Amino acid sequence: MADPSTCLPLTPDSVAKAHAAIKSHVHRTPLITSKTLNEIASSPNPAAYLSDTPPSTNGHSNGASPAPRLSLHFKAENLQRIGAFKARGAFHALSHLITLHGLPAIQKRGVITHSSGNHAQALALAAKEFGVPSYIVMPGISTASKISGTQRHATEVIFSGSTSSEREEKVAAIMREKGGGRDGEGPILVPPYDHPDIILGQGTTGKEIEEQYEEWIRNQPEGHSGKASLDVVVAPIGGGGLLGGIATWFSDKPETRVFGAEPEFEGANDAERGLAQGKRIESVKTLTIADGLRTPVGVTNWTVVSNKDKVEAVFSVTEQQIKMAMRLVFERMKYVVEPSGCVPLAVVLFNEKWRKWVVEEQRKEGTGRAWDIGVVFSGGNTTMKAIAKLFGEDDAEEAASKTAESERATGEIGVNGEKVAENVAG
Amino acid sequence: MADPSTCLPLTPDSVAKAHAAIKSHVHRTPLITSKTLNEIASSPNPAAYLSDTPPSTNGHSNGASPAPRLSLHFKAENLQRIGAFKARGAFHALSHLITLHGLPAIQKRGVITHSSGNHAQALALAAKEFGVPSYIVMPGISTASKISGTQRHATEVIFSGSTSSEREEKVAAIMREKGGGRDGEGPILVPPYDHPDIILGQGTTGKEIEEQYEEWIRNQPEGHSGKASLDVVVAPIGGGGLLGGIATWFSDKPETRVFGAEPEFEGANDAERGLAQGKRIESVKTLTIADGLRTPVGVTNWTVVSNKDKVEAVFSVTEQQIKMAMRLVFERMKYVVEPSGCVPLAVVLFNEKWRKWVVEEQRKEGTGRAWDIGVVFSGGNTTMKAIAKLFGEDDAEEAASKTAESERATGEIGVNGEKVAENVAG
Repeated sequence: MADPSTCLPLTPDSVAKAHAAIKSHVHRTPLITSKTLNEIASSPNPAAYLSDTPPSTNGHSNGASPAPRLSLHFKAENLQRIGAFKARGAFHALSHLITLHGLPAIQKRGVITHSSGNHAQALALAAKEFGVPSYIVMPGISTASKISGTQRHATEVIFSGSTSSEREEKVAAIMREKGGGRDGEGPILVPPYDHPDIILGQGTTGKEIEEQYEEWIRNQPEGHSGKASLDVVVAPIGGGGLLGGIATWFSDKPETRVFGAEPEFEGANDAERGLAQGKRIESVKTLTIADGLRTPVGVTNWTVVSNKDKVEAVFSVTEQQIKMAMRLVFERMKYVVEPSGCVPLAVVLFNEKWRKWVVEEQRKEGTGRAWDIGVVFSGGNTTMKAIAKLFGEDDAEEAASKTAESERATGEIGVNGEKVAENVAG
Repeated sequence: MADPSTCLPLTPDSVAKAHAAIKSHVHRTPLITSKTLNEIASSPNPAAYLSDTPPSTNGHSNGASPAPRLSLHFKAENLQRIGAFKARGAFHALSHLITLHGLPAIQKRGVITHSSGNHAQALALAAKEFGVPSYIVMPGISTASKISGTQRHATEVIFSGSTSSEREEKVAAIMREKGGGRDGEGPILVPPYDHPDIILGQGTTGKEIEEQYEEWIRNQPEGHSGKASLDVVVAPIGGGGLLGGIATWFSDKPETRVFGAEPEFEGANDAERGLAQGKRIESVKTLTIADGLRTPVGVTNWTVVSNKDKVEAVFSVTEQQIKMAMRLVFERMKYVVEPSGCVPLAVVLFNEKWRKWVVEEQRKEGTGRAWDIGVVFSGGNTTMKAIAKLFGEDDAEEAASKTAESERATGEIGVNGEKVAENVAG
């Protein structure tokens, strides 16, 4: 990876430069609106829309709990190249290396990473487009489809053991072997998230959200009653590259508040917990269905995420809430978004702390206008098989856990899986 | 319904008029391209891409069977209002009634239909937007989600028995009751597909495909090597309103050939069979997973579909081929399209007769260019539960039927469900 001392500072201007460098290589994915999702998000009980008998009116209860007024703008990075935002960071990291060392040098050396996920495919794709060799270390136990997806673009896929030290040792061995042990030779490591080049690349998502939101305002036939800028942007946080980049872009726009969204299962909410204790949490072991968000926040990313001027707060959601958001995206919007990519919408729909905060801010503002919320769909890499597994077991699961669930659920949500609670207003 | 004698003739000009009448009420859904799907469709064995080890190169085999060269343009009616193209016909039928009788008369009388599917929701939505009462007769055994989806917009949902005569009797009874038995009073029947107003409304899909394809050509940075018009459009055919409308639009453009796509399960390919025997097939009883295409072609629609100058041919596909197409749309394109909506893509990818015809035509043309194919995604109304059911059973099913399947499969496809045959080239 480029020596961080050669990288641009983490500023909006640097994100704009990253965008200029990569925009001919990545898709400008659409920013999507949905009246139905606005209605659901602005109702007092969004979960009621997942029952077999959803609210038939506008979903407003007879004066029960107050609901935020929300107008959602979805950034569809599920339609990005390789199916996720990771293409942005990989193209930017590589283009910075080429700027520093020249294309022939990088084509001679190649790049290397260890990853079984979207970063591996993204780096392999970027390398292929620049005619640069790529070496991807993957755990031997990776699924065949992930291996072949990476092999599709990579020069070479090398298998390793599955612990991170085994993977890192394998990477080091290949770097030594290909470089003959000499400095400045052999493939260059491009890590998945914890590096300024990656953060700035992912931050281009934020720049596009803002530009596309402004286009949207201009295209409103009846004008727009809101502000000229988004009120809120919510992005998922795993290693923190995406949230860090987006927060960097919006850091000189205090009128737009940036939030992180995490799964809470088995302590996956390390950013939320780290912020509470004032210290980054260094390791996490979770099998949340949001498999892109299992990593703890990286060191560099933590400097952005823990800066209250950049990231307002991080909120977390349950596995069930992620699945409910995913079903709404799938059934109502007709888009395939992977579980990790649905976490921001799950926060918007189901996190009572976040929703109460909006209700309270809107009460103070007193204008009655809906807030414009950017919601990042970070990726769409899932399979029919995974979906069938995730949602096929629901009936049995729910029947079994119905009582337990309803005891655990907050009073305001009050929904067990697909069954709406009795107290939900029509 | 408007007396057919008051309707415009089935011509491209009438489709243009229908478009002017409805375009402020329906979405101009996007026309989508996908490099990945082009690669898959242009490979000799598209099914190989569904295996766990898809082709790592461009998918071209070492000179095995020749493949067509295809550039696909998907019309995303899954993103249409109420999730399907049916909104177009319903809005057009209603707006024609209003033109004929005046809005106050229609608001007094209301509209009625019997349907448990997308047409019911579409008509109820259109009626609501014009302030017209709507009465929807549904079988009492309909699923709760379909009932509530219709109740969301309808003035009244009335339950009936589930046979068509029971449903028709109920409709007649309501018409008599609300109209006091007097001519020119009571709600007006709007049938789902077999009427000129419906055909012309659905035909606006074809007009948009053509316009958006022309926009796409203009936006090609490196120009376009094809013709100035689409070579082929493939649309699903159930009752025939959509295919009939699209074929009507393209009827004065012989350079664009229009094909119908049907499921073949349990004789659902009534249009294909009817064309072969030179006579419309009047009844069909099938439980194909393409549940929107279970109906036989309507009488009026048959006049269009059986006209070789309008519809070149109709091809059919197996349940397994529909599921394979659906998986590719879901996993590679990240869109949710219902089984019926995936039937045209299934024909393009898997129907050997259609593919051989293209190969032969391209050989005669001798230019080496890819053909531009419009492929209609007609709707996206499915649920996670349905998907889980459809794809969750695959493993068991496939293991059991592997031998049987491979015996039935054509040599050139040679794929059993998700497992690629040994003879597939890398």
